[in-house]
Amino acid sequence: MGKIKVDLGHHAYTIFVEQNLSQNIRRHIQARFAKKPNRLFIISNQKILRHHQAKLKKALQPGFDLEWIKIPDGERYKNLTTIQRIYEQLVIKKADRQSVIIAFGGGVVGDIAGFVAATYMRGVPYFQIPTSLLAMVDSSVGGKTGVDLKAGKNLVGAFYQPEAVFIATSLLQTLSMREFRCGMAEVVKYGLIGDANFFEWLNKNTKAILEQNARALEHLITVSCQMKAKIVIADEKEKGIRAHLNFGHTLGHAIEMLSGYQKIKHGEAVSRGMVYAARLSEKLTGFKPSQTQAILSLLKKLGLPIAIPDYPIKDYQKAIQSDKKSFNQNIGFIVLDRIGSARQIILKPKEALVLLGNR
Amino acid sequence: MGKIKVDLGHHAYTIFVEQNLSQNIRRHIQARFAKKPNRLFIISNQKILRHHQAKLKKALQPGFDLEWIKIPDGERYKNLTTIQRIYEQLVIKKADRQSVIIAFGGGVVGDIAGFVAATYMRGVPYFQIPTSLLAMVDSSVGGKTGVDLKAGKNLVGAFYQPEAVFIATSLLQTLSMREFRCGMAEVVKYGLIGDANFFEWLNKNTKAILEQNARALEHLITVSCQMKAKIVIADEKEKGIRAHLNFGHTLGHAIEMLSGYQKIKHGEAVSRGMVYAARLSEKLTGFKPSQTQAILSLLKKLGLPIAIPDYPIKDYQKAIQSDKKSFNQNIGFIVLDRIGSARQIILKPKEALVLLGNR
Repeated sequence: MGKIKVDLGHHAYTIFVEQNLSQNIRRHIQARFAKKPNRLFIISNQKILRHHQAKLKKALQPGFDLEWIKIPDGERYKNLTTIQRIYEQLVIKKADRQSVIIAFGGGVVGDIAGFVAATYMRGVPYFQIPTSLLAMVDSSVGGKTGVDLKAGKNLVGAFYQPEAVFIATSLLQTLSMREFRCGMAEVVKYGLIGDANFFEWLNKNTKAILEQNARALEHLITVSCQMKAKIVIADEKEKGIRAHLNFGHTLGHAIEMLSGYQKIKHGEAVSRGMVYAARLSEKLTGFKPSQTQAILSLLKKLGLPIAIPDYPIKDYQKAIQSDKKSFNQNIGFIVLDRIGSARQIILKPKEALVLLGNR
Repeated sequence: MGKIKVDLGHHAYTIFVEQNLSQNIRRHIQARFAKKPNRLFIISNQKILRHHQAKLKKALQPGFDLEWIKIPDGERYKNLTTIQRIYEQLVIKKADRQSVIIAFGGGVVGDIAGFVAATYMRGVPYFQIPTSLLAMVDSSVGGKTGVDLKAGKNLVGAFYQPEAVFIATSLLQTLSMREFRCGMAEVVKYGLIGDANFFEWLNKNTKAILEQNARALEHLITVSCQMKAKIVIADEKEKGIRAHLNFGHTLGHAIEMLSGYQKIKHGEAVSRGMVYAARLSEKLTGFKPSQTQAILSLLKKLGLPIAIPDYPIKDYQKAIQSDKKSFNQNIGFIVLDRIGSARQIILKPKEALVLLGNR
């Protein structure tokens, strides 16, 4: 079992990486509190519970009363209406400040459950048990929680850290290959922004990864979580280096938004956005075209899309300006100097979109 | 001008108490940030703006672009629908992470604007400019933000500290006498839970207070804010002594809830709740009946109600169990040992309601 410590000073917690959901989870939750929590409120969805509910029950019992709160599956339900329904269920089930929330699902479940934990009775403790690769390597680590508004993704939320994150790689067996690939886009990102050796390792182990070899998965998840933890410790509230995690995401978010958050998934949009950001880096930092080719090659091997969709440039402009990372309507754009080294450049929207040409 | 420092370690800020809104506000906001914020989003309501908008403009200009966001007046609008509408307006007006929110109003405006600040783009800075006595001495200090659910008050929220609080006592001139008295209930509470001398001072200065003598107001607001600040510094997240601030509030919240949050105002409910808590203290701690009489006498002089409304005991029981301060369905009830000294006792709902008799 791998352990990654996330010590934020005001709050320290551990990310556990193991193959299967185990009684480690129960023991850790019990040990975490001076006074044992009375009840666990597990927020999840029908699909996850069909596959994994029995395993989670086994990992958590005996010792806790379990209450299950189901939300509909899909990013389009990541909104304030779903949040309000969960609040109402917590009230009906008499959840109090001694209650504990568990996010059991992919990124959407984690973001929603984390935001509920941050705001129900002004904050109750919560744990993340991610079930998608994207959630394991990205959204369940770092304390970003929140929901979308019609006007844009994640426009509402809070920084709120979990008590622990429990990652079990075997849960990925029920994930669709498409979802798995989406998670790999974020994994590739870690190599690009901070670890050229890891990028090389990914290149050499594509086959083992796509076959979901247990050791390969544990390695890539551990390295990804370590890098994310390091960045979050350095900059919890995203005032500086944490912005590097947005590599590929400025255009990525715009692409997702313009596709209506349905046709193109987050990881697919990020993959395309990383290709764009690499090309823009060539123009702005002298990033080598051969390195852009290496990125393209890895993304293709992983089955990720690389083309920039043909939406009107005006729509792209509107979309990137609604992003949270815009300042006085300028864009904090993450570029690469070389594979393994990123930095932020402030660009006007037109400068950021210069490669899209006339549409 | 009085200044109270609130040093929470991770975040330090000042409460300013002066007679009129002044350019101190503009200067302080400009000095607070390394990079001057581009725009101020002032959340308020029609009534407050009719009385005070010109004065606030004068205190803030030149130097900032001001955007005004109006919300309807009244506790019944302190809900997620109002929050969502504010988010939408912030998006339309292109508020970004460099924008600053100002809560300009009473407790409802402060709670709502603070929660929006805590959650819009995962947190933007905000300032409190309270316009009611209740907000000046209580809700604008301490970082509690949030909204109500149908099931209960303040069930959703966040701890989120302002960048500064600006109190101008002359704003109270447009407050109704009833609202002013409501604020005085919280002021009396500070004497009861922590400062017998202040309680005596209140007793001796009732006339000057009710005449809104400027020096008396400045004194009682300063003492109240100092005590609240001291308690919040000791226990920001309400895990211990901060609970003392709930003196009178367990039954108070129940009374407010059972009156439908309309007929009986918060301060009036707290006044009644304090009388109840004093009487319960007689039973539980040996609190002297003569001190209960002194409390009754001061509340009456201030024009505050003291009777416990005649709702069925079952309704009271349900109401106090839905309170955030319930643990495993027990109640953390604040009692007095003597005037100036409080503590928490954990009670079963029936024990807490024992004085209500059979209804």
